[in-house]
Amino acid sequence: MDEEKGIEQRIENSNSRFYEAFECLSIEKMEEAWKHSDNTICIHPGWEMFTGWTAIRESWTRIFENTRTIKFFITNTKIKTFENIAIVVCLENIDTVIDDENIFRMGVIATNIFEEQNVKNNSDYNSEWLMIHHHGSVVTNYIPPNVSV
Amino acid sequence: MDEEKGIEQRIENSNSRFYEAFECLSIEKMEEAWKHSDNTICIHPGWEMFTGWTAIRESWTRIFENTRTIKFFITNTKIKTFENIAIVVCLENIDTVIDDENIFRMGVIATNIFEEQNVKNNSDYNSEWLMIHHHGSVVTNYIPPNVSV
Repeated sequence: MDEEKGIEQRIENSNSRFYEAFECLSIEKMEEAWKHSDNTICIHPGWEMFTGWTAIRESWTRIFENTRTIKFFITNTKIKTFENIAIVVCLENIDTVIDDENIFRMGVIATNIFEEQNVKNNSDYNSEWLMIHHHGSVVTNYIPPNVSV
Repeated sequence: MDEEKGIEQRIENSNSRFYEAFECLSIEKMEEAWKHSDNTICIHPGWEMFTGWTAIRESWTRIFENTRTIKFFITNTKIKTFENIAIVVCLENIDTVIDDENIFRMGVIATNIFEEQNVKNNSDYNSEWLMIHHHGSVVTNYIPPNVSV
């Protein structure tokens, strides 16, 4: 039971790391969150799929270039684990600055899938949960939670 | 290699079964396609998540009641398998009749996740790939393929 809780916490940390990378608009942090593989998939809201890390990295570079400030408040997180695969569903409550004065608030529902990998860390190998799939879609009838992001 | 191809074919068949159930507007066929579990998740385009088979079934009932005719032409299918879990991403090219004369064409990108399950079939147990997760989102800049659905 404690081990299960430990695994769930590590997966939640990997999910948070992805959103921290997005908030920092940092391609280096985004690189750390994802598995660099030809068959990772990323579906941004309203878009078709990007396949493979090279195309996905390029899509994040373009998004970061076109974003001034973005803040995430993650709610409704559901985690399911299957051996070395974890499926996370969560609601991204997003505040984004669109010009000097206006904050735009929106809700995006996300399916994030992570795979447990052995990653070299200095001279040791550690297991890490890396993102292999992201699918985000805008919630049309979004009601923001009654808190500040 | 042949076994891998066999598994991929069975997963593709399960994916097709889901879209056939949708085309038939048949709740019985939809019941056969899904795992009836409290932690299955379904995200319809523009919606928040439905969690658990009871809520998901109810959402399909309502969608079927409000749909006259719908046809799917599935393209760009990508399948990844991990032990007893399969992730399918595909583009749903959809024709739906909105009134007597007008067909509305749209593109929805879907993440469909299946879990291999032992299902009782008469007196035997057979393995089946059942849907545990569906996430669909509308493609904004959709260009339909040059074929009829």
